[in-house]
Amino acid sequence: MERTPLTAIAFDVFGTLVDWRRTIVDDGLRLSKGVDWPGFADGWLQGYRGFVEQVRKGEIPWQNLDSLLRRVFDQLVIDFKVTGVPTEALDHFSLIWHRLQPWPDTVPALTRLRSRFRLGTLSNGNMILLTDMAKFGSLPLDCLLSAELVKTYKPEPAPYMLAAEMLGPLPQQVMYVAAHAWDLAAGGQLGLRTGYVSRPMELGGRSVNDQPDPSFDLVAVDLLDLAAQLDKWPA
Amino acid sequence: MERTPLTAIAFDVFGTLVDWRRTIVDDGLRLSKGVDWPGFADGWLQGYRGFVEQVRKGEIPWQNLDSLLRRVFDQLVIDFKVTGVPTEALDHFSLIWHRLQPWPDTVPALTRLRSRFRLGTLSNGNMILLTDMAKFGSLPLDCLLSAELVKTYKPEPAPYMLAAEMLGPLPQQVMYVAAHAWDLAAGGQLGLRTGYVSRPMELGGRSVNDQPDPSFDLVAVDLLDLAAQLDKWPA
Repeated sequence: MERTPLTAIAFDVFGTLVDWRRTIVDDGLRLSKGVDWPGFADGWLQGYRGFVEQVRKGEIPWQNLDSLLRRVFDQLVIDFKVTGVPTEALDHFSLIWHRLQPWPDTVPALTRLRSRFRLGTLSNGNMILLTDMAKFGSLPLDCLLSAELVKTYKPEPAPYMLAAEMLGPLPQQVMYVAAHAWDLAAGGQLGLRTGYVSRPMELGGRSVNDQPDPSFDLVAVDLLDLAAQLDKWPA
Repeated sequence: MERTPLTAIAFDVFGTLVDWRRTIVDDGLRLSKGVDWPGFADGWLQGYRGFVEQVRKGEIPWQNLDSLLRRVFDQLVIDFKVTGVPTEALDHFSLIWHRLQPWPDTVPALTRLRSRFRLGTLSNGNMILLTDMAKFGSLPLDCLLSAELVKTYKPEPAPYMLAAEMLGPLPQQVMYVAAHAWDLAAGGQLGLRTGYVSRPMELGGRSVNDQPDPSFDLVAVDLLDLAAQLDKWPA
């Protein structure tokens, strides 16, 4: 494949740059000991993804991710019997997605890549959430792009097109990097370059049944490996 | 006036955070001695503002600021008789808006404000331009918002509404900071809080005939003064 010089790299965020599940579990344990926090975290992901699909298909009106996360959260608090926690502490915990911990390789890899490429996000997280998370994790990113800007969710085409237009402006000038094949495949179909990163611990080591597609441009074991492979890609 | 806690501050960029005119003049002098670079810089601003107005009124199709800046540049090179400069150097200079120098108080003031508020831009500059400029000037901003995201230009309402929705989400939760009364007034009419910053040297010390409107929430002599005044504003 001909390697068009890249002007930018756009990153998926949840699971790719940050370890959402472990952050939720660790923070949950500080809140209350007797709750199945891994189950809570998995339920939170599944719950918001369900709503995201409904928004995407037009079954429910647009709502940003903070709204969807809060709706799921309120139900999980009942389902998982989270009791005896002060309202203020619960409200603070409900916004844990604004304070997700980066994977250990995230900051070093972004720092390395940032000297050669423009770095952005391409996330279903809303702008305030991304702003807070990037600040919290001191993520060396140049800009934040969210599906909220086009009021639909990945894998609809509009968010990927936005990243291409704003950072490319041609799709082949932007590499989309994610740890999920469904997401990368959607970006690749729109002409973005694709970089797959393994995150075997995203679900706590459980088999994730997520395999890179042979069509992806790069397949890396982590973000530092991706950065090393991109040394050979023209900027 | 009741002071709603602010969640974010959105900054105008050209003239407010960066000294576009002096950067163009200084860089121009390195390119060629015999050109009226102050006149060139002023012509560049006036020229792109003219195109921006045409886009805004729907007289010409949407084009991002890089495209408009280049169109004006190509004409100015002829009008100001910029000759004997290699094409590559001229192309590099045409993108000087990606490398504008911050005012001396910009980085210290943003650093101070960033510990209390989310900081963003609200600029007619396109995303790639803003991304490069923020990186070049090491501007401590949390996110970049551009009129390009809504494909029209300030003072149309859409860019201001975007900043309010993405960073507020209510307009009164966001303070818009700019050195130009026309721009702040447009934001204020849509419910954003308004902070006026004097930049008497923006046009090289020439009288700028720009006065704060009595309706503005804050009037500051520079960005550090604005930061000091915002110490009293609830976050």
